[in-house]
Amino acid sequence: MATGQDNFHFNTIAIVGVGLIGGSLGMAAKTKSLARRVIGIGRAEHKLMRAKIRGAIDEYTLDFENGAAEADLIVICTPVRLIVPTLDRMADSLKPGAIVTDVGSTKAEVVRQASAIMPDGTHFIGGHPMAGSEQAGVDAAFPDLFLGATYVLTPGEGTDLSALGCMAAFVESIGGKVEIMTPEEHDEAAAVISHLPHAISAALLHLAEGSHRESRKTFRLAAGSFRDLTRISDSPPELWRDICLTNAASLREALAGFRGVLEEFEKALESEDEAAIEEFFQHAREVREAFLRIAK
Amino acid sequence: MATGQDNFHFNTIAIVGVGLIGGSLGMAAKTKSLARRVIGIGRAEHKLMRAKIRGAIDEYTLDFENGAAEADLIVICTPVRLIVPTLDRMADSLKPGAIVTDVGSTKAEVVRQASAIMPDGTHFIGGHPMAGSEQAGVDAAFPDLFLGATYVLTPGEGTDLSALGCMAAFVESIGGKVEIMTPEEHDEAAAVISHLPHAISAALLHLAEGSHRESRKTFRLAAGSFRDLTRISDSPPELWRDICLTNAASLREALAGFRGVLEEFEKALESEDEAAIEEFFQHAREVREAFLRIAK
Repeated sequence: MATGQDNFHFNTIAIVGVGLIGGSLGMAAKTKSLARRVIGIGRAEHKLMRAKIRGAIDEYTLDFENGAAEADLIVICTPVRLIVPTLDRMADSLKPGAIVTDVGSTKAEVVRQASAIMPDGTHFIGGHPMAGSEQAGVDAAFPDLFLGATYVLTPGEGTDLSALGCMAAFVESIGGKVEIMTPEEHDEAAAVISHLPHAISAALLHLAEGSHRESRKTFRLAAGSFRDLTRISDSPPELWRDICLTNAASLREALAGFRGVLEEFEKALESEDEAAIEEFFQHAREVREAFLRIAK
Repeated sequence: MATGQDNFHFNTIAIVGVGLIGGSLGMAAKTKSLARRVIGIGRAEHKLMRAKIRGAIDEYTLDFENGAAEADLIVICTPVRLIVPTLDRMADSLKPGAIVTDVGSTKAEVVRQASAIMPDGTHFIGGHPMAGSEQAGVDAAFPDLFLGATYVLTPGEGTDLSALGCMAAFVESIGGKVEIMTPEEHDEAAAVISHLPHAISAALLHLAEGSHRESRKTFRLAAGSFRDLTRISDSPPELWRDICLTNAASLREALAGFRGVLEEFEKALESEDEAAIEEFFQHAREVREAFLRIAK
């Protein structure tokens, strides 16, 4: 792992799934000389060739087991529901002391299942860089993707502290701001801040479609607020299906809480409670300002 | 009113409340020579002076009755709940044939109450330009504010067609795209496309605040989706209070419909219905694409 003689954090980094995130990680690691060698691992050779041409990796292999066997750090950048099956394939080949991380959007289920698979003496540390969520492929990758971005690390209960320190140093070296949370804390926060907004956006589009079908007028009003609110529904449906399914408990809790807040507002509207309605918007504006300060 | 001898649509236009919208209307009318004279009417003389310096009006008066008596077109640009009281003050002074319009965000209540006040031989035609909703004052005004923007006109049941034609020609002359709807159609569409989104944004901020207070982590995840979804909560709370209060019935219907869609999604989540969850997001993406085509 980290050595005193040079700047390298790792001898060999393996990236499984060299798309936007994986490719950017490889580029960042190479640009900053954080590893002697970056290997790409995947199933589609033409994508790996493209990643090599773009300078995201030094070499590649289609052999998951052998690729994994050579790496000190393995970053799994597959879609979220393939993370554990991918790890399962490689687990027996891992070097002693190897660190495995992922970049999935939900963490509790992944960390729980991954931790159960990892051989003794190896370390799984969940990760979630808050950068570039659409998987636009290695052609969209660039080394500064993580610059200034929050990068959540979610150690499990028995996570080795020096392995966690290694990962944190690596994240900082590629420009990320490390936030350490438990997997559960991450998922609860992500449900509110990201997964619920996607459900809301989709639900609003469903409702508006119904309204437009009836009147043929709704979309003509085309307010900026509707445009803003539904922008995130451009994302790949299968990605969001999997995020919802792997964070169902937290998302359901967020949905119930959200419906509760809306119902209170409806009551204020029903009783024409002017003060309560104004306070509803006034307080929201204050929270938004606080959010912007905290989120920088 | 409209004459054949020159380009003027109106001899005298009076604008009540010369802020962003009113000021931009005045500038557009003067730039395009749509009136011989544009009068500003208001209560705050320093604001009217500023509007004159900025070229939004030719002259001004603090006397609502006398100002109204001189105008062929009166545009009421006050906050939505002041439209009818303002009209009430001026109604008896109106010229025969005068047209009164407003720029309020909700229409059914305003049109119903305004129509009951208007003297015989004068015309009220509700209006709602979908441009620059924040009232940032005359210093933010500019003549091209309406260029390419949808401008809804909402004639009542007995509206005179030639008065409506006059208003439509005026809107087109300042660059707006005329959409004619009934006041009720407008309010139903606006509830879905604009008022509900503001309620959603505020509710999401309330929920996120609760989550952040508990964990101190939520806002650190600072996803772009949350930022996008809550941007509209920067708006003045009293403005949104009044919009909600004057469109309560349509907004409550939209809220109920929205909660219904969310509940269906929750059921799919609860039963881990993968196909239904994917379809929920897939269909939303398609609707978003359709919306963007329709809204241009």
